[in-house]
Amino acid sequence: MKSEIIAVGSEMLTPHRQDTNSLFLTEKLNELGVTVAFKTIVGDKRKDLASVFRTALGRVDIVILMGGLGPTEDDLTREAVAETLDRKLRRDGPLVAALHIRATNWRIPMPENNLKQADVIEGATILPNDNGSASGQWLDVIFESYRKLIVLVPGPPSECKPLFETEVMPRLRETLPKRAIAKRSLKAAMIPESQADKLLAPVYTTYTDVETTILAHNGDIQLVLQCVKKDQVQAQKRVNELASKLEELLDDWLYSSDGESLEQIVLYYLGLRQATLAVAESCTGGLVAQRITSVPGSSRSFLGGAVVYSNALKTQFADVPAELIEQHGAVSEEVARALAEGIRRRTGATIGLGITGIAGPGGGTETKPVGLVYIAVSDANKTEALERNFRGPRARVRDWAAQQALDLVRRRLM
Amino acid sequence: MKSEIIAVGSEMLTPHRQDTNSLFLTEKLNELGVTVAFKTIVGDKRKDLASVFRTALGRVDIVILMGGLGPTEDDLTREAVAETLDRKLRRDGPLVAALHIRATNWRIPMPENNLKQADVIEGATILPNDNGSASGQWLDVIFESYRKLIVLVPGPPSECKPLFETEVMPRLRETLPKRAIAKRSLKAAMIPESQADKLLAPVYTTYTDVETTILAHNGDIQLVLQCVKKDQVQAQKRVNELASKLEELLDDWLYSSDGESLEQIVLYYLGLRQATLAVAESCTGGLVAQRITSVPGSSRSFLGGAVVYSNALKTQFADVPAELIEQHGAVSEEVARALAEGIRRRTGATIGLGITGIAGPGGGTETKPVGLVYIAVSDANKTEALERNFRGPRARVRDWAAQQALDLVRRRLM
Repeated sequence: MKSEIIAVGSEMLTPHRQDTNSLFLTEKLNELGVTVAFKTIVGDKRKDLASVFRTALGRVDIVILMGGLGPTEDDLTREAVAETLDRKLRRDGPLVAALHIRATNWRIPMPENNLKQADVIEGATILPNDNGSASGQWLDVIFESYRKLIVLVPGPPSECKPLFETEVMPRLRETLPKRAIAKRSLKAAMIPESQADKLLAPVYTTYTDVETTILAHNGDIQLVLQCVKKDQVQAQKRVNELASKLEELLDDWLYSSDGESLEQIVLYYLGLRQATLAVAESCTGGLVAQRITSVPGSSRSFLGGAVVYSNALKTQFADVPAELIEQHGAVSEEVARALAEGIRRRTGATIGLGITGIAGPGGGTETKPVGLVYIAVSDANKTEALERNFRGPRARVRDWAAQQALDLVRRRLM
Repeated sequence: MKSEIIAVGSEMLTPHRQDTNSLFLTEKLNELGVTVAFKTIVGDKRKDLASVFRTALGRVDIVILMGGLGPTEDDLTREAVAETLDRKLRRDGPLVAALHIRATNWRIPMPENNLKQADVIEGATILPNDNGSASGQWLDVIFESYRKLIVLVPGPPSECKPLFETEVMPRLRETLPKRAIAKRSLKAAMIPESQADKLLAPVYTTYTDVETTILAHNGDIQLVLQCVKKDQVQAQKRVNELASKLEELLDDWLYSSDGESLEQIVLYYLGLRQATLAVAESCTGGLVAQRITSVPGSSRSFLGGAVVYSNALKTQFADVPAELIEQHGAVSEEVARALAEGIRRRTGATIGLGITGIAGPGGGTETKPVGLVYIAVSDANKTEALERNFRGPRARVRDWAAQQALDLVRRRLM
């Protein structure tokens, strides 16, 4: 079953705005075994909109129109769809009443124009919108002797997503041939994408009934396994079977078998070991602390730490001897070790993490180039350190360094 | 002049990948007075690709095809375009040679299939790609008695952008009617979007020849002013005229008249005053430090600071008296002030910043709800503090708090 997603709105044809809902809609449609064959973005022009919709009707079974359902002159999706299907718009009494009540509750004036949001295409089912004033609409029609499903949903993500979830998905499930879907998401850290693919492809390519997608970003690899079958048990069995083979191959690169983030996993292990963590960051400048504290409840295992950008602060907050910096330079394995040990002692954390490096673009030398990073982790038993040379611009070097640091902590906890 | 951008690649029809190049291309095209009327995303299917291209030829003057120029079976843009224009593909000798040299230099094997990257559509100009093996192509044709410009560019951003900049833009400038464009970007912090629009709309709406776009994100407002005219001086004059009126209205909300980020501006003022900054962050967990250190050269003015997630560290690193926390609670104006003053004393920075709050989702109470944040800034003369109640999920509360904190420092420096 093929579908097309049409995103309506001139703002998405500027350099400043982009459709993002369609990623969510695609995931949902795929779950039902519906592929997205085309995505189209069109402005708030009735003629353009009508022709784009007409084209979509000619090439797919399901057309999702997103946006253009608001109260302004520019909101023309209802009109364009009705015109193309050669159907009338009727103003729906209950919707008109609901709009009036809404306006009263919010103590906002209701210009006549607002009422166009109560216009319903002949034969359409109204899809109530709990998060906004624009309802969705559902049409199941015969167009040029083919059956077409046409769905109108509002544009704002906060309205589009819940409405699609609660109103559209059940109707699609009911209408489409029954499918069962099984999904798993494996995650691994710091394995090069090419290496991962070389390692895993020979296995996952043999599972022709499981779709495997590899996503790589700054040292983080995600494998999305999806299997669509008539029978749920069968689908799950195939996915789990492949998953466990891939998990075995990924060995200790694997950090999650269920899609958690690396920082979530680190916090999970810290909790399990009843351990605490403190960090002393130089080149990552707070990036590691920020990632960890982005997880709700992180305060249970994360004490905090220091962003020791200046040499003075390395001494002040992590007791790195000034002579050590003098002797080896701020970016050195010795200083990374001292940072990890110092922040651990200072905070009384179970584990201390130290990071120092040259993020660039400036500050590199012959012997210490941009991208050189030292990372050390320390606990009661020992301190270990890594040297890495990351390539690319400042932001990339920082991201890779933070990822490597979190992975080093994870490995120490395992 | 109307254009359509066609992004080619099945991966962009999955929930995992999205076209982003088109934002860059749109900005470039707008600079030449070319509007983007449609964006289409199509998979690596020759039939689909051909029909999408055919549709585009029917509705715009300039068609940009992005991607599908690689060496694999799936890369079919050249073939689909040639087929639709009813032109032949010829294998270009010099390109074949270049591919061989490239393969030798990189010590990579070159399968026969790679040579398809040397196929050129009859009458097309080759656009050399310095960053990859797939060249672009430029066609200036008469199609059904209308003149059409057709441009093929590679998909990877690292190849697409430089190639479009160096090869396509000059040709478009040469071909299209001469236009002069003037642009300005004003930025303001912590003014509500609705308030900004209410304040500014009466003015910018009177400048019908200047296009004004308001972009708002977590306490950051950007106004993009753009004017396209025949004459550069005239265009610039109009933009500057409007800009200075808006700047006056925005008063001290305005932090940048040329598109810099808030952290860049804070660092700029710190440099100007030969001042240094240190931060003590609780609920933002390193977010402020991370934003500041994302700017190259920030080490000149930013000393660093402490992420004091636990109460013990608030005392340990910022000398916040335990009794003070006991008495007022960790999330209180008193503790925010103590953090700012303590981190300043400890680090010897000119300015100290302290942040404490409840990011949520848990941890809120009747008297201290989720989203309550106290921010304090301290220098030799005085310490001032703010209380804010931010709404929304954890990430949003943290982003708003960091933005407010940076803005408070900016105001202190002005």
